[in-house]
Amino acid sequence: MSNLVGRTGIVVRQIQRADPALIDELTRFGVATVHEAQGRKGLLAPRIRPIQQDLSMSGSAVTVLVAPGDNWMFHVAVEQCRPGDVLVVAPSSPCTDGYFGDLLATSLQARGVRGLVLDAGVRDTKTLREMGFHVWSRAVHAQGTIKETVGSVNVPVICAEQLVNPGDVILADDDGVVVVRRNELPAVVEASRKRAELEEKKRLRLASGELGLDIYDMRSRLQEKGLKYVDSIDHLED
Amino acid sequence: MSNLVGRTGIVVRQIQRADPALIDELTRFGVATVHEAQGRKGLLAPRIRPIQQDLSMSGSAVTVLVAPGDNWMFHVAVEQCRPGDVLVVAPSSPCTDGYFGDLLATSLQARGVRGLVLDAGVRDTKTLREMGFHVWSRAVHAQGTIKETVGSVNVPVICAEQLVNPGDVILADDDGVVVVRRNELPAVVEASRKRAELEEKKRLRLASGELGLDIYDMRSRLQEKGLKYVDSIDHLED
Amino acid sequence: MSNLVGRTGIVVRQIQRADPALIDELTRFGVATVHEAQGRKGLLAPRIRPIQQDLSMSGSAVTVLVAPGDNWMFHVAVEQCRPGDVLVVAPSSPCTDGYFGDLLATSLQARGVRGLVLDAGVRDTKTLREMGFHVWSRAVHAQGTIKETVGSVNVPVICAEQLVNPGDVILADDDGVVVVRRNELPAVVEASRKRAELEEKKRLRLASGELGLDIYDMRSRLQEKGLKYVDSIDHLED
Amino acid sequence: MSNLVGRTGIVVRQIQRADPALIDELTRFGVATVHEAQGRKGLLAPRIRPIQQDLSMSGSAVTVLVAPGDNWMFHVAVEQCRPGDVLVVAPSSPCTDGYFGDLLATSLQARGVRGLVLDAGVRDTKTLREMGFHVWSRAVHAQGTIKETVGSVNVPVICAEQLVNPGDVILADDDGVVVVRRNELPAVVEASRKRAELEEKKRLRLASGELGLDIYDMRSRLQEKGLKYVDSIDHLED
Amino acid sequence: MSNLVGRTGIVVRQIQRADPALIDELTRFGVATVHEAQGRKGLLAPRIRPIQQDLSMSGSAVTVLVAPGDNWMFHVAVEQCRPGDVLVVAPSSPCTDGYFGDLLATSLQARGVRGLVLDAGVRDTKTLREMGFHVWSRAVHAQGTIKETVGSVNVPVICAEQLVNPGDVILADDDGVVVVRRNELPAVVEASRKRAELEEKKRLRLASGELGLDIYDMRSRLQEKGLKYVDSIDHLED
Amino acid sequence: MSNLVGRTGIVVRQIQRADPALIDELTRFGVATVHEAQGRKGLLAPRIRPIQQDLSMSGSAVTVLVAPGDNWMFHVAVEQCRPGDVLVVAPSSPCTDGYFGDLLATSLQARGVRGLVLDAGVRDTKTLREMGFHVWSRAVHAQGTIKETVGSVNVPVICAEQLVNPGDVILADDDGVVVVRRNELPAVVEASRKRAELEEKKRLRLASGELGLDIYDMRSRLQEKGLKYVDSIDHLED
Repeated sequence: MSNLVGRTGIVVRQIQRADPALIDELTRFGVATVHEAQGRKGLLAPRIRPIQQDLSMSGSAVTVLVAPGDNWMFHVAVEQCRPGDVLVVAPSSPCTDGYFGDLLATSLQARGVRGLVLDAGVRDTKTLREMGFHVWSRAVHAQGTIKETVGSVNVPVICAEQLVNPGDVILADDDGVVVVRRNELPAVVEASRKRAELEEKKRLRLASGELGLDIYDMRSRLQEKGLKYVDSIDHLED
Repeated sequence: MSNLVGRTGIVVRQIQRADPALIDELTRFGVATVHEAQGRKGLLAPRIRPIQQDLSMSGSAVTVLVAPGDNWMFHVAVEQCRPGDVLVVAPSSPCTDGYFGDLLATSLQARGVRGLVLDAGVRDTKTLREMGFHVWSRAVHAQGTIKETVGSVNVPVICAEQLVNPGDVILADDDGVVVVRRNELPAVVEASRKRAELEEKKRLRLASGELGLDIYDMRSRLQEKGLKYVDSIDHLED
Repeated sequence: MSNLVGRTGIVVRQIQRADPALIDELTRFGVATVHEAQGRKGLLAPRIRPIQQDLSMSGSAVTVLVAPGDNWMFHVAVEQCRPGDVLVVAPSSPCTDGYFGDLLATSLQARGVRGLVLDAGVRDTKTLREMGFHVWSRAVHAQGTIKETVGSVNVPVICAEQLVNPGDVILADDDGVVVVRRNELPAVVEASRKRAELEEKKRLRLASGELGLDIYDMRSRLQEKGLKYVDSIDHLED
Repeated sequence: MSNLVGRTGIVVRQIQRADPALIDELTRFGVATVHEAQGRKGLLAPRIRPIQQDLSMSGSAVTVLVAPGDNWMFHVAVEQCRPGDVLVVAPSSPCTDGYFGDLLATSLQARGVRGLVLDAGVRDTKTLREMGFHVWSRAVHAQGTIKETVGSVNVPVICAEQLVNPGDVILADDDGVVVVRRNELPAVVEASRKRAELEEKKRLRLASGELGLDIYDMRSRLQEKGLKYVDSIDHLED
Repeated sequence: MSNLVGRTGIVVRQIQRADPALIDELTRFGVATVHEAQGRKGLLAPRIRPIQQDLSMSGSAVTVLVAPGDNWMFHVAVEQCRPGDVLVVAPSSPCTDGYFGDLLATSLQARGVRGLVLDAGVRDTKTLREMGFHVWSRAVHAQGTIKETVGSVNVPVICAEQLVNPGDVILADDDGVVVVRRNELPAVVEASRKRAELEEKKRLRLASGELGLDIYDMRSRLQEKGLKYVDSIDHLED
Repeated sequence: MSNLVGRTGIVVRQIQRADPALIDELTRFGVATVHEAQGRKGLLAPRIRPIQQDLSMSGSAVTVLVAPGDNWMFHVAVEQCRPGDVLVVAPSSPCTDGYFGDLLATSLQARGVRGLVLDAGVRDTKTLREMGFHVWSRAVHAQGTIKETVGSVNVPVICAEQLVNPGDVILADDDGVVVVRRNELPAVVEASRKRAELEEKKRLRLASGELGLDIYDMRSRLQEKGLKYVDSIDHLED
């Protein structure tokens, strides 16, 4: 399948999507938790930032490969979307132009699409926030784009330094964006549940004043690694 | 006039300003719309970001050329400002120092100035938000500046990769900043009105579920350019 | 003492802290004011940005030197903190990984720590805002870290291009972060008071429409430096 | 296979390599030519730069996934290399630390490895140039790394925004680095040959003074797109 | 004329060029000297770097406005060039794609063009060095471009944060690129001659061991500004 | 002493320097080796790059604190230099202006100064290479500076994220710049000697084809950490 990465001129009509209940459950956990639960993989580069605050979103990836400065394939992609999808868009060369604004958002919203993850620029950001259409992007930039070069829809793409396949599951919040492989979702949700439960227990102990040093039994290992305590900085030879 | 770009030691007292009603009307449209309406020119570099959210501003540019790390010319510029103006400030070498804070804002506000576009740093940002003095800048940075080197007021400047003449019209919102030539303002407003109207119609059709592919009649041209639809990714030879 | 900068494997248990009343008074002034009042030194690099808006914080620095991508020393540091402290964390090599999240914040909050200044990444930012735990950081990044390499607690560190000693005083607000030497705090607070008073007087005059040109008597010096006024740009030879 | 991207703890011993003669032939063409010949895909991000000048290299990718600031897996990778291989290394989080120096280069050179492509930092650069060991990297940085966390060898990695599979073919020169899928190499070499031949013919015509406008018959299409010629800038209404 | 900045769809056939002897004389001086001699204006942003070392170039600017990722107008520009010209190319939105390679260089060289200043990417850099075609660019990037959108030739452009008019004079060396207005060239050359002469005299005095402090009579002014000498750092209260 | 960091208006005349023979011996080792030998501390940020290739330099630091865009203190510093010194210059706010060129280099060379480490811009780079005056800087930039604001000479400075005291020892090569505390030099040289010897032995073994895995006995620890070998990628469940 890796030969399809970066290949232009293709639209794949039918993709497999994960269990909607599990997709929705993902938003119970933060991006940080899910990234940990699946073995610290799948995290998009931190240059991708939300245009809104304190909101999270999950959905099935409809992937879009676009030429730099060319948003033609967004229109092609809209037709392939279903309710609960998230558009994941990667330009074939680094670009901050404003590929996406309120009209495309209106069209996507009409099809039940939940939001956009875009390794390029977005515009009409105030209107997008008012519409409740959620966006994570590399830049805010009003620069217009053209419609001259075909890309692809629903082929695997590299978006912000991660491979995203069509139908993979996206989770995005204030901390960034993580991709979960479609067939790994059940295991990742299960691991996230356990991690969240465990963290809740730890939180209670930490809130009560217990130290991580003791909860995690770190003192002896720190000593082995050579950590030394002194009462005052004056006790250190300079 | 281009010989004046970058020339220091000059203050021009009288500049021509555009029609105030048209300047005010600009804020009905977003920066993205106006940038499109005038042929995709005049957009400042996306490194210029607002310190406040969901606000827009338009006004006549009073231009200021400043030395790096030297905000002396702000005081000179205040005297040249009238109600409805916007200060547009460009350092002669890249700099993020905090040229501007609440005292200068107080002085400008007393003269009816609407805001500041600055390709450098700003400070006292919380107070500026509380005062309702609007700022678009390259950085937030508390670093102080000096008053040793003269620059110019109301000569043409290059601010964030665009030429701005004194009296040109500035529009700024969450998406960034665009400059409109003074003598082009009537045509740009007219084109923006048409564009906004047209977009409103498109919005309604898109909201009702019509596809851009059909509204813009894109299908045949996409086919000519070689776009192919397949039912499943498995149908592609790898 | 400079030999201790960057030295790993040490925890200093007792540090001297400044007068709590003076530390608290610092938040009356902004970072910009305090930076000016102490002779324009001590300002951290502007890459350090708050994850919350319109809040300020002061406290005694508990310093932490961490390895890149390794947050082990946070747990060691918690034990050394007292109410009113602020954690100041510097990695030994540039890193944006997410060293810090809500569990560590819970632990620090249980000990009365006011917040964190971190030249690296933070995660769980929505929860941190909800908890009221204040953070200034270089990045928001969900990337997890490990616990393998010892660093130090309460040795002098270079954080975002400034030297911070344990017990130095930190002030942070929307404009950034400034460090005040512990033994200079009384003088800096006094100088800040005077500066704030003076600025208040200037503010009133500027608000009433007086010009900085006149208040600061700048006109003759500008003339000496060669500044020339012309009525119109057409009067300038091109 | 995409589930393996980013998975740690695995070393794959046997990988398939492409035809050595075709791999070697790649260096007859530049990176730009091969990138074009395979449909403008596979080009690594331009942040990857050579430490030497005017040299090119091709080889079979042995892929290495490393933790940030941890070069342990280089030693594991050496054992998996054969003559003609190129090491392709990706950290699991952005990092510029100096993972690689002259000792590892000595070890790789002893096994016939041709060079290194690394999305992180390198050190001992002068010695590496003297040894004739070729390196393309994101940074030059002397910062040392640790050996605590396992990654993987010969799983697919994302290196500088491209997917690289073990056994894929790497071509690197002054313009950057391109990856060719192993099974596409014959077609890409053939397309590169044709392109190079064609370019040679064009070069002769252009060198003789013929214009691209005529060779490529561009004039009518430019006119259709609205391009207008004027004799002088004064003929344009301003 | 400023209305023409950023305007697309125009080719101006006849431009005025400066005196060739003066253009050539510029290379006797460095970019730093000429930048100083004309009042510290006209220096392009330092992101523009040469692909060759220890070479300088001067010439008349043929300006080209290009769309992001689209090099069509290069072919249009070639026809407008004469011996002694330098191409100055600005994209209408930030872009690092590889607009330019050895074929276009061959075409330009056939017309006597001396080199290229480009606020975008270049490729085939090794061949360009071998051909002796000089290039200053923002990036080295093999990424290909398209030919779909018309820009302009010989309208004023903003290149790397400076306004460049057709026929303005370009000087480029290892330190960067400076633009001299065509009608200011005689005065700038004369000022550069004087500056160079003066610097030669200073150089002899400094080489003989005289101090700048004495040559420029700085000691009393430094004292006025409060500079204090102490014999040892121990004499300073800490 | 930390109160002196960032303090302006002071020139310290007498500083202590380390043993010249040990300073000279440092150049036998690379920056990477010395950085390791002193416990991975003291490495300047990798943004500091040499303007020449394949040369190294060591010397005693004469430290200079300068205002942004102001090179006045260089002239003050020259007088404080002795043969074998290296100028280490830090601006009080981030700046890339061209503080330093061939005239200042002539003056420093006349006093036997070996080179410059500068966290800002340099110009006249071709001439500096011809003169054999070595420079490590943050940028190459022709932009001129002024002489209006006093800084300090021979107070501790933060240069490129490291603390440098006057009289500390600087080692710079193609990999970057490292600072060694004056009183730690004997120990650091001794540790570097041992490290270099050890590395030489390792190099011979690695060159003969021995594996690091065996030399460093890594296999069992890798296994403990969970590293698994498989013969083929097909053996992995996907």
